[in-house]
Amino acid sequence: MRLALGVSYNGQPYLGWQSQPSGQTIQDQLEKALSQFCDQRVLTHCAGRTDTGVHGLMQVVHLDTPLARDMHSWVRGTNRYLPPDIAVQWAQEMPSDFHARGSAVARRYVYVLLESPVRPALESGRVGWSFRPLDEVAMREAAQHLLGEHDFSSFRASACQALSPVKTLHRIDIHRRGPYWRFEFEGNAFLHHMIRNIMGCLVYVGQGMHPPSWLHEVIDARSRDAAAPTFSPDGLYFAGPVYGPEWGLPTTTPAFDWLP
Amino acid sequence: MRLALGVSYNGQPYLGWQSQPSGQTIQDQLEKALSQFCDQRVLTHCAGRTDTGVHGLMQVVHLDTPLARDMHSWVRGTNRYLPPDIAVQWAQEMPSDFHARGSAVARRYVYVLLESPVRPALESGRVGWSFRPLDEVAMREAAQHLLGEHDFSSFRASACQALSPVKTLHRIDIHRRGPYWRFEFEGNAFLHHMIRNIMGCLVYVGQGMHPPSWLHEVIDARSRDAAAPTFSPDGLYFAGPVYGPEWGLPTTTPAFDWLP
Repeated sequence: MRLALGVSYNGQPYLGWQSQPSGQTIQDQLEKALSQFCDQRVLTHCAGRTDTGVHGLMQVVHLDTPLARDMHSWVRGTNRYLPPDIAVQWAQEMPSDFHARGSAVARRYVYVLLESPVRPALESGRVGWSFRPLDEVAMREAAQHLLGEHDFSSFRASACQALSPVKTLHRIDIHRRGPYWRFEFEGNAFLHHMIRNIMGCLVYVGQGMHPPSWLHEVIDARSRDAAAPTFSPDGLYFAGPVYGPEWGLPTTTPAFDWLP
Repeated sequence: MRLALGVSYNGQPYLGWQSQPSGQTIQDQLEKALSQFCDQRVLTHCAGRTDTGVHGLMQVVHLDTPLARDMHSWVRGTNRYLPPDIAVQWAQEMPSDFHARGSAVARRYVYVLLESPVRPALESGRVGWSFRPLDEVAMREAAQHLLGEHDFSSFRASACQALSPVKTLHRIDIHRRGPYWRFEFEGNAFLHHMIRNIMGCLVYVGQGMHPPSWLHEVIDARSRDAAAPTFSPDGLYFAGPVYGPEWGLPTTTPAFDWLP
């Protein structure tokens, strides 16, 4: 039986999603908990790996299992073995041709940023920070340059394993609530560090260090050196993959309402 | 010179506010940082002690110092020596008769609670949790019984050092945003564990275990045994003291906008 799980986590204490010998990753914690619940080794495939310190609002994984349990038991039973900052939110039986990564038609990310002369405390590890005021109109205009299909080599980490740097960004929404800025990104796929590198550039423009049209130059350069430094992982949340309605999967979890 | 500071913190990793030999309290961290910045021993007096795991949106402390620094330096200089989850938000010079605790005419607290069949993960340590649905009308009606001046002995921890169990609750507001409930409390003063014990009772009523009028019986009993168990500290935030406008102190900090 193929199973899909929706998983939320605080990425702060973990070395990212992907399994490592140290065991200090979210995949390690999830597979250990699933293996305890199933009393046999369980392997998972995720929709999108997250880096050290990046959070998951709704990561999706699939796994294959010979065990028949009701969906409620998968959630409750697995969560019993997970640490407090990781939890399975839902489970659903899927056709065997569903693949958490391969079936996703798009991905969504949220970046939350505190604009304040004083650094965050209560929200430490949960938000990026700009002590300079940000210009909303300039950032919105800069974001327009990124929409559509582009070669995003200027926003690509050297360790990126993607076959092609050409990706399509469908949407960048920028909102603020009090001192918190919320940046929402949706695209067909993202390169390694792509959102954090875009955030670095948008913040540069927001702080007035470059005009909005600078983003056009950065894209054209196709060189990492042309862009701003990689922004902090603290405020980055993987909001989850987007699947076609034919799969009938949940599109939201409670954690979506947690962010400003 | 007397100085007032507004301080925000994540209470999760600390043993509450009040100084202890272990040094693992927020007061210890703050006084250590102030002493490093001032290069001399600094003692502080807070508006309201918080328990282990309870957060601070805007704790206020006062201190006396012979040092003359601009207010900006007090904030930036102290924060340099504080851990990432504690930060001074503002500093203001005060008349010598100002007292962080004694000058406060009221205190405000916020309790954030997740209503979901699945436990929190991303918000672990930041929210209380009810896996059963809560009845808003019933909780609002129950809260009405608590408003005004009462002997709150039924909501008082055995370790409470208050001289009198008689306190006045001015306001309890209950709102929800998606799966998150936000309870706001304002009163002249609070007994030890009073909010967490009230929360336990409101959640019992919200879950249908008792009718709203039960709160009246609980108050009348003047006995801790009459009330529900003490609710988790995870979702409790000290929103700060209320001072008369004559002191000219800030009434808000960015962290207020962080909660749902």
